[in-house]
Amino acid sequence: MVNVLDALTESVKAGQVVTADAYLHRYAVDQAPVTDFQLPLAVVFPESVTDVQSVIGACAAAGITVVPRGAGTGVSGGAHATRNCVILSLERMNRILSINPDDETATVEPGVVNADLNDAVAPHGLMYAPDPASFRSSTIGGNVATNAGGLRCAKYGVTRDSVLALDVVLADGSLIHTGHQTFKGVAGYDLTGLFVGSEGTLGIVVGITVRLKYLPRDVHTIAAFYPGFRAAAAGVLAVGRARVQPAIMELLDGGTLAQLDELHGSDLTARGRALLLVQTDGFGAAAEAEVVRGVLRAGGATVTTEASAEAERLVELRRHSRGAEVDDEYRVGEDVAVPRSRLVDYVAALESMAAEHQVKLKVVAHAGDGNLHPTFWIDRQGTGVDPVAMERLQRALDDSITAALSMGGTITGEHGVGQYKLRWLGQEQPEPVREIQRRIKDLFDPAGILNPGKAI
Amino acid sequence: MVNVLDALTESVKAGQVVTADAYLHRYAVDQAPVTDFQLPLAVVFPESVTDVQSVIGACAAAGITVVPRGAGTGVSGGAHATRNCVILSLERMNRILSINPDDETATVEPGVVNADLNDAVAPHGLMYAPDPASFRSSTIGGNVATNAGGLRCAKYGVTRDSVLALDVVLADGSLIHTGHQTFKGVAGYDLTGLFVGSEGTLGIVVGITVRLKYLPRDVHTIAAFYPGFRAAAAGVLAVGRARVQPAIMELLDGGTLAQLDELHGSDLTARGRALLLVQTDGFGAAAEAEVVRGVLRAGGATVTTEASAEAERLVELRRHSRGAEVDDEYRVGEDVAVPRSRLVDYVAALESMAAEHQVKLKVVAHAGDGNLHPTFWIDRQGTGVDPVAMERLQRALDDSITAALSMGGTITGEHGVGQYKLRWLGQEQPEPVREIQRRIKDLFDPAGILNPGKAI
Ligand SMILES: Cc1cc2nc3c(=O)[nH]c(=O)nc-3n(C[C@H](O)[C@H](O)[C@H](O)COP(=O)(O)OP(=O)(O)OC[C@H]3O[C@@H](n4cnc5c(N)ncnc54)[C@H](O)[C@@H]3O)c2cc1C
Ligand SMILES: Cc1cc2nc3c(=O)[nH]c(=O)nc-3n(C[C@H](O)[C@H](O)[C@H](O)COP(=O)(O)OP(=O)(O)OC[C@H]3O[C@@H](n4cnc5c(N)ncnc54)[C@H](O)[C@@H]3O)c2cc1C
Repeated sequence: MVNVLDALTESVKAGQVVTADAYLHRYAVDQAPVTDFQLPLAVVFPESVTDVQSVIGACAAAGITVVPRGAGTGVSGGAHATRNCVILSLERMNRILSINPDDETATVEPGVVNADLNDAVAPHGLMYAPDPASFRSSTIGGNVATNAGGLRCAKYGVTRDSVLALDVVLADGSLIHTGHQTFKGVAGYDLTGLFVGSEGTLGIVVGITVRLKYLPRDVHTIAAFYPGFRAAAAGVLAVGRARVQPAIMELLDGGTLAQLDELHGSDLTARGRALLLVQTDGFGAAAEAEVVRGVLRAGGATVTTEASAEAERLVELRRHSRGAEVDDEYRVGEDVAVPRSRLVDYVAALESMAAEHQVKLKVVAHAGDGNLHPTFWIDRQGTGVDPVAMERLQRALDDSITAALSMGGTITGEHGVGQYKLRWLGQEQPEPVREIQRRIKDLFDPAGILNPGKAI
Repeated sequence: MVNVLDALTESVKAGQVVTADAYLHRYAVDQAPVTDFQLPLAVVFPESVTDVQSVIGACAAAGITVVPRGAGTGVSGGAHATRNCVILSLERMNRILSINPDDETATVEPGVVNADLNDAVAPHGLMYAPDPASFRSSTIGGNVATNAGGLRCAKYGVTRDSVLALDVVLADGSLIHTGHQTFKGVAGYDLTGLFVGSEGTLGIVVGITVRLKYLPRDVHTIAAFYPGFRAAAAGVLAVGRARVQPAIMELLDGGTLAQLDELHGSDLTARGRALLLVQTDGFGAAAEAEVVRGVLRAGGATVTTEASAEAERLVELRRHSRGAEVDDEYRVGEDVAVPRSRLVDYVAALESMAAEHQVKLKVVAHAGDGNLHPTFWIDRQGTGVDPVAMERLQRALDDSITAALSMGGTITGEHGVGQYKLRWLGQEQPEPVREIQRRIKDLFDPAGILNPGKAI
């Protein structure tokens, strides 16, 4: 077997292969709970497509696996190091290659940070719509690999809906181009769609052409405080029944409000036990906001009447509602989605699970999409782990998944399966569907060198 | 070899297997030019998922190929009979299985006609957005298999963007379910997206869950007449630069206007040499229409000032602008798409091609998406074919494809490759990308019984 470090060092420039211990540790994990910690052999920082091809070639020859990584903000362990792997960090490939205002497209390298792309296209009156709450740090490549959602996906769709074409380095080191530079195109199978959301298991995304949307001229934001979470969830359906499509519809429960108060000194808890944030945009924003306010008031909400400023501040708080906390074995964030009509039932089910298993619960939801992020946690003990409490936490997690599935939901609305959610995938997808995916994986990566043990 | 007709007759009910000559002829072709006419062995009309499974089973056992068919409105020959095949017509599987107004979803059998679904959901204030001009006859299954576009896709996206989940019968007769009932879901690879647009080559779509959108309360329609086609194409870009997103943006050239005048006794030609139809919808429709009118007038258009009624009538005419004509060897409709900024150049290129090759040309375009349907034709001679004229027609077609590709376009924006466009696919997709698709086809259909010689 070739020494992979020598091979890597030969194939890329000095400074692109790092083996310093601090780096290995920093790049060993993303933001998900760690169940099987592994240290990578090296972290490699390619600066070009040919660098990526060389790295893949060297690893393939040495039988070393490759874990691609954007910003490492993933919360499913998709970028966790696996045994005997190299971390391929795309962060230095961060150039915006072109912005085409009349075509309403842009082409970027994978390491471009979501917010940087938005800043660059804003002067043209354009925006890149998918806006995960991690938009200030996560990369377009990572967003593509996870098919990331976000706040304004209620109206503008998820990452998949904004991706037109990809450049992908395959497991054999070859480079292919998929998709089309045009808004529409149906020649052949949708390989672009297959790579989007494949979590680095089918190929390395090295170039992305995205469709841009128009920056809305007018934005109205409404904050609606409710006496309880279920009433707030019912508000989401009421807005839907009024057939108004907000850009953003976010739901925060009492636990989340308390946490925000603690972090930011706000007085949200005093104002309600649940908060629904609705943002309308575009030429009809004011008229839509008027309808939304009426509907929410009728459902028992206390609705902000003033101009949007305060409500907008709350949306900003919401974007940061994960705060600095990182999931670990004591605190696990979920990412289920349910059909919208089941939102109220699901929230009720969550509350009784938390009570039954004596774990703490807080919930935020991209409620317009029926996508909920319940976080369950147990208090950290001074010394060591309390196995009984840990067991209760795991049971609450399992129950929350089972309940979502029984309501026609999914185990992951936007974060991906990664490594952490693999244990639930079989509950959602029967064996024949999983087998098809394994065969697709085999087709693209017969030696299994790309991000093994993830996603499928 | 088993006698497939016996096997089929045994596996489904009487009346579901038809071999009458008139049927065989009627179901042998769709609306595309025919280059290799074949008569099917039988036409089979399954009424349930198990019927479809039985038919696939019987055909697989007998080594007979299966050509699925919706309404046969395809214009690429995707539903043309191939040698030694059975036509599997899904038209009797036309039940709307559920409409879920709060979930904003519906589940249908594949044979449901697009317009019927829209009629059924309209009372709930909902619509199924993708609206190919064939919406009164084409089926949701056919729309899914071709990833159909349509008029309002400029704002609402193509079929792919409205499909959440599929039931698919595979080549081995097994049934799988892909996707999710929720708006968002990222568990595993996007198999749903892989089947959408696969033109019946990977599996038979037997059930579809779609996401519905809100019926707009307000719609404004603008008709803008221009002295020439290029100025009208420039109008499309001008609306884009104003950062207004119309629901519909359709472009009709002088040839199309003349044809509509002939068919409907209208006076369009007297009013301009090109027509741009723009529809805005939603709460901001009136304000958006105001901006659009200003921008188009500034670009030299004569814009309807009256209420939308007349302009709406023109959109209806546009929906029927293909008229009764069927493509054949004398008249071929194209379906290219180009990046929007190239619309003007491409239209100029088309005009000079038509002049150079002495063929007639008319163009309609889903211009908001940069998706053009040029139709080239030569006059039919009294007796027999004029080989020299035919050769000129073919050269014009080839040139139109080459020009679109050289501008960063695609050979098919929405109609699919089918059988007719296979000859150009190699110009768009290099061999490695085509090889991946062949291997995906092999994975799903190793014996090659599903719609062979189509799509890839
Ligand atoms: C505070 C916070 C808020 C968040 N909010 C949201 C949210 O609203 N919506 C949402 O969807 N997610 C959210 N996330 C999760 C996370 O930000 C997203 O999954 C994001 O898309 C990951 O991007 P990344 O660049 O950090 O990728 P990483 O975490 O580095 O990688 C994610 C996955 O993609 C693969 N990958 C990365 N780059 C490539 C590439 N170029 N080619 C192939 N594979 C690659 C990795 O192997 C891994 O499997 C949030 C996370 C945090 C910490
Ligand atoms: C007047 C007119 C206007 C049109 N306007 C548009 C337009 O605006 N936009 C647009 O995109 N297209 C348009 N088309 C083309 C055509 O209507 C679309 O391609 C439509 O989606 C075909 O639907 P169908 O039910 O007629 O399918 P068919 O023509 O019967 O089949 C189309 C393809 O799908 C496959 N197929 C059908 N059903 C299934 C199934 N259940 N499972 C698997 N495979 C299946 C067939 O094998 C074939 O390859 C137009 C056609 C006409 C004649």
